[in-house]
Amino acid sequence: MKISLTSGKNIECASDTSILEALKKAGIYLTSSCGGKGTCGKCKIIIKSGQTVSKSKIKLTREEVNKGYSLACKTFPSEDVLIDIPKESMLVVEGKVVTGKSKDLLALLHSTGAEIKPLTERLVLQLPPPTLDDNISDLERLRRELLSKGMACLRVPFRFLPGLAGTMRKKNWEITLCTIHTEDCEEFIRITPGNKKTPQYGVAVDIGTTTVVMFLIDLANGNLVDVASTYNSQIRYGDDVITRIVHATEHNKLKELNNAVLSDINTLLSTIRKKHRIDINSIDCFVVAGNTTMTHLFLGLDPSAIREEPYIPTANTFPLAFAGELGVKVNPDLPIYAFPCVASYVGGDIVSGVLAAQLHKKRELSIFIDIGTNGEIVIGNSDWLAAAACSAGPCFEGSGIKCGMRATDGAVEDVKINPETLDVEIKVIGNSDTKPAGICGSGMIDAVAEMLLAGIIDQKGKLQKDVSGRVREGEDGLEFVVYSDEIRDLVLTEPDIENIIRAKAAIYAGFSTLLKETGFTFNDIRKVYIAGGFGKFLDVEKAIMLGMLPELPKERFEYLGNTSVTGAYLCMLSRKLRAEAEDIARKMTYLELSVSRSFMDEYVSGLFIPHTNIDAFPGVKRLLER
Amino acid sequence: MKISLTSGKNIECASDTSILEALKKAGIYLTSSCGGKGTCGKCKIIIKSGQTVSKSKIKLTREEVNKGYSLACKTFPSEDVLIDIPKESMLVVEGKVVTGKSKDLLALLHSTGAEIKPLTERLVLQLPPPTLDDNISDLERLRRELLSKGMACLRVPFRFLPGLAGTMRKKNWEITLCTIHTEDCEEFIRITPGNKKTPQYGVAVDIGTTTVVMFLIDLANGNLVDVASTYNSQIRYGDDVITRIVHATEHNKLKELNNAVLSDINTLLSTIRKKHRIDINSIDCFVVAGNTTMTHLFLGLDPSAIREEPYIPTANTFPLAFAGELGVKVNPDLPIYAFPCVASYVGGDIVSGVLAAQLHKKRELSIFIDIGTNGEIVIGNSDWLAAAACSAGPCFEGSGIKCGMRATDGAVEDVKINPETLDVEIKVIGNSDTKPAGICGSGMIDAVAEMLLAGIIDQKGKLQKDVSGRVREGEDGLEFVVYSDEIRDLVLTEPDIENIIRAKAAIYAGFSTLLKETGFTFNDIRKVYIAGGFGKFLDVEKAIMLGMLPELPKERFEYLGNTSVTGAYLCMLSRKLRAEAEDIARKMTYLELSVSRSFMDEYVSGLFIPHTNIDAFPGVKRLLER
Repeated sequence: MKISLTSGKNIECASDTSILEALKKAGIYLTSSCGGKGTCGKCKIIIKSGQTVSKSKIKLTREEVNKGYSLACKTFPSEDVLIDIPKESMLVVEGKVVTGKSKDLLALLHSTGAEIKPLTERLVLQLPPPTLDDNISDLERLRRELLSKGMACLRVPFRFLPGLAGTMRKKNWEITLCTIHTEDCEEFIRITPGNKKTPQYGVAVDIGTTTVVMFLIDLANGNLVDVASTYNSQIRYGDDVITRIVHATEHNKLKELNNAVLSDINTLLSTIRKKHRIDINSIDCFVVAGNTTMTHLFLGLDPSAIREEPYIPTANTFPLAFAGELGVKVNPDLPIYAFPCVASYVGGDIVSGVLAAQLHKKRELSIFIDIGTNGEIVIGNSDWLAAAACSAGPCFEGSGIKCGMRATDGAVEDVKINPETLDVEIKVIGNSDTKPAGICGSGMIDAVAEMLLAGIIDQKGKLQKDVSGRVREGEDGLEFVVYSDEIRDLVLTEPDIENIIRAKAAIYAGFSTLLKETGFTFNDIRKVYIAGGFGKFLDVEKAIMLGMLPELPKERFEYLGNTSVTGAYLCMLSRKLRAEAEDIARKMTYLELSVSRSFMDEYVSGLFIPHTNIDAFPGVKRLLER
Repeated sequence: MKISLTSGKNIECASDTSILEALKKAGIYLTSSCGGKGTCGKCKIIIKSGQTVSKSKIKLTREEVNKGYSLACKTFPSEDVLIDIPKESMLVVEGKVVTGKSKDLLALLHSTGAEIKPLTERLVLQLPPPTLDDNISDLERLRRELLSKGMACLRVPFRFLPGLAGTMRKKNWEITLCTIHTEDCEEFIRITPGNKKTPQYGVAVDIGTTTVVMFLIDLANGNLVDVASTYNSQIRYGDDVITRIVHATEHNKLKELNNAVLSDINTLLSTIRKKHRIDINSIDCFVVAGNTTMTHLFLGLDPSAIREEPYIPTANTFPLAFAGELGVKVNPDLPIYAFPCVASYVGGDIVSGVLAAQLHKKRELSIFIDIGTNGEIVIGNSDWLAAAACSAGPCFEGSGIKCGMRATDGAVEDVKINPETLDVEIKVIGNSDTKPAGICGSGMIDAVAEMLLAGIIDQKGKLQKDVSGRVREGEDGLEFVVYSDEIRDLVLTEPDIENIIRAKAAIYAGFSTLLKETGFTFNDIRKVYIAGGFGKFLDVEKAIMLGMLPELPKERFEYLGNTSVTGAYLCMLSRKLRAEAEDIARKMTYLELSVSRSFMDEYVSGLFIPHTNIDAFPGVKRLLER
């Protein structure tokens, strides 16, 4: 059977192959966080013409079904069909994943005082040909040349020797050498005849529990060439790190989890490579940052001991692994750099985040918080750093929320409710004609805070039935309609709101417990850096109103976006910053909150908007009283 | 068809399979320096009963044919046969390859002042189990333990991480770690649960152009467990390094040469492992020493530029290669250490030899000479070392000589001719009942010197027809019968004698040219160390009479046997001595004789016994005048 796309492309599809699979084979990747089980409802397509067999539509609204929407993973063509793929279903939305801009990243890089000196370097060398008076071996000739350029410590793996004589002679003793800086040495990665200085690209990846984000970087100038992201398809084995470790340990399925994230990374990589026509040998650098469990699962390391007291990872610092050993589809000899971790529950993403926030350089006391599936909090300055972790859940990344989605094109990122008319005003990521497709983290925070102010929910998060026409009975109980068009409604359900409240309670409890443990109060904090996949911005006032962030003067907060991938970007482009990252990991002290009584008390007190102790939020208290 | 051996074993053989191949498949390896082409005549067997088809017998005497001798490589069974394998045809003769004794090797090791500290070390560690107060990662726990033992620089390849957590927990935090010392660091080779301190073996190999010799060493105490040797089956592609490089370069057959030596090494290894029932994981150390070309061919490096001016090897020092990369059949992750070389024509065998002779430690001026297929000569003391090479040819290793053989069981190693009666008295390597099977290097030197003294040859090496009944017309012209029994005669032919004279002339020319170039004379030399595969001893007086060695007082000469494998033994057992070997390679200066006019003149003058300039040999002159 033939599947025609409204964009003009035609692909083949057997009747026992789902449209999702057929698209995948043709190199068209849809978002599919459940891995094609029909449970996440993210791989929506619109059948424009032709008969299909649809095995499940449970994630579709009646309106969507009427409009021809179908789940690609559960739909099989009975004859030739014409389909349309909505933007929000695309795995990689052209250049529109909101993470940071090339200009901002370069400005950040320069602000650290670092110059561009990538983790891997290409050197073009013109060697003097040998003579009877200068008859040292080929390898010694190369070493001598590099020594004269100040590279005294060289590591030459044996595999370079068999081809060396031929390579050096092929273009008249001109060669391009690619090396990686490791353990104060330069390790050979590749030798090619002649001048192959450019093009040279790097790939930086944030492996989140919920979301995987990839940067493609031009190493010559530090420009961000493209960004891509997808859900981590390990989600099908569990939402949080604990359930995934259980799967790896008790079901003996480490390989499954490993394959899941590898396939996400390889798919992003292949999409982005095809789009920019990048040869595999132009990718010289590959850096990943992830929490300790994600890093273990990516590297194929046994995570079992991370889950059980006393919570021990296999490693916190990782020897360079080759892409070929790991199964990453770049040049198999390319070394993969994984960010160092601190402890079982404070990982490389946090080290990377602290690097991006430059917390370790400030003299004033600051807090860094990364709100992903876990909430990790770091407090400190240029002298010391302490960190703790609290389990927030994946709701702010769009997972586990009925109409949740990543902060990409089509996501509702900003919600305002007129307290008088109760009219709802939304902002959507994308162009002016982008249709709302879901709600991302910042949109959820806005919505819940605004709903409280408008009296649509109470302080426990319960929806008030008769306040607004937008509150209605849905299949999961009461729900609030944030947006509605001819096709479908975007809603927040009561379970969604409970989810959001639990997450914000955990985050706030993390803040207050870490402060207590280190002997400080909120007033000692000069700056709070917030990281997370919320999109372009996070409305701090709304987050305070929700009780997620402490009530401090607004100017003390700074929203940084995805700092994990930003830190990976910095580390890839500067050896100085990589050394700083390793230093951050070494000096950070980890505090275990899970055994803290005080944390549990704080958490329970936070299951209220903004907090059981309303006096900690005097501004919100005044607003609510109005 | 069935082949029964007189030793009792039975093996299967198809009619289109040679008996050599069938024996090989059954793990019985015969000497076969031509690789089964029927040209070396070394794989003799005796057919006791049963019909066979023999495709060539050209290397057998009539008597041998009458006695049922056949070449295993050219013989195919037509029915069930019973065969006998003569000892001299066996590739590995039980413990009888003459190279050195365990006691002597240990004495040499101790005389250097070194203690046993092998290149690779096994450490049994009992780690403290983690607790909430001591919750560093598994890898850090291991690093901390090793640091407390003084091992600060560790190199942990990524491949150890996936299994680390399981290995450490399996035997209650007791593990055995095997590391190799490299670049001032300890590199992990293997980690096993529990205490696996012993058994631990090492393999040292001398890769000669003609002969491959292997030592099996118990690393716990330095004992030499066994010795095995075989011809380098690259011989089928040419006798010397130049013809082999030509084959690799012009015929593009580097892989063939590489496979040939690998198969020799793997066969020796498998035989010796089976004999001593040694598990592959008990072999922790593998050291090879060979000349620069042999090292290149073993490692699979392109040797082309070695042959052409300005004579450039790919490398003189070699990064550790893994057995798996090279195809050596030990644990694929075992690193293989190749001795450093000095230049294209002074290789790791000479560095190893100088180490064994301890030339680099003596204050007096000494000479070291290794007489193999090439003759390499080193002059120097603890302050300086200079080396040169001259092409001697493989005759002293038994190759290219009609009845030549390695110095192993059955070899005639000593020949005396009564000047009055012209009776010949021989000594044979082996037990009192070992039958002579061929003539080794020391036997040839003896025989030619004695034949000169007895007037059987003239000073040009021409056989005198009517002097002795033992001089007769053979298929290659005149020949001298050294030994004769009911089966066959051992002879030295005139071409054999010419071969021996050319070899000795090249060696002597090497001596005198190197002395001239460094500004010394023979009288400045306190000691001459002689290395080579001559067997247990070399009769220096006979070698002087032949004009191979300079006429110096007898006590200044010392015969050391195969110093290449001895040096590899020393380097494997002591890190101090390994460092010395690397220092020797660094400080040795290479002089290129092939462009020296003086060398050619000296060579031509040496094509006479003992020398055209008889005054350089006053003692020999007196003897001849008598």
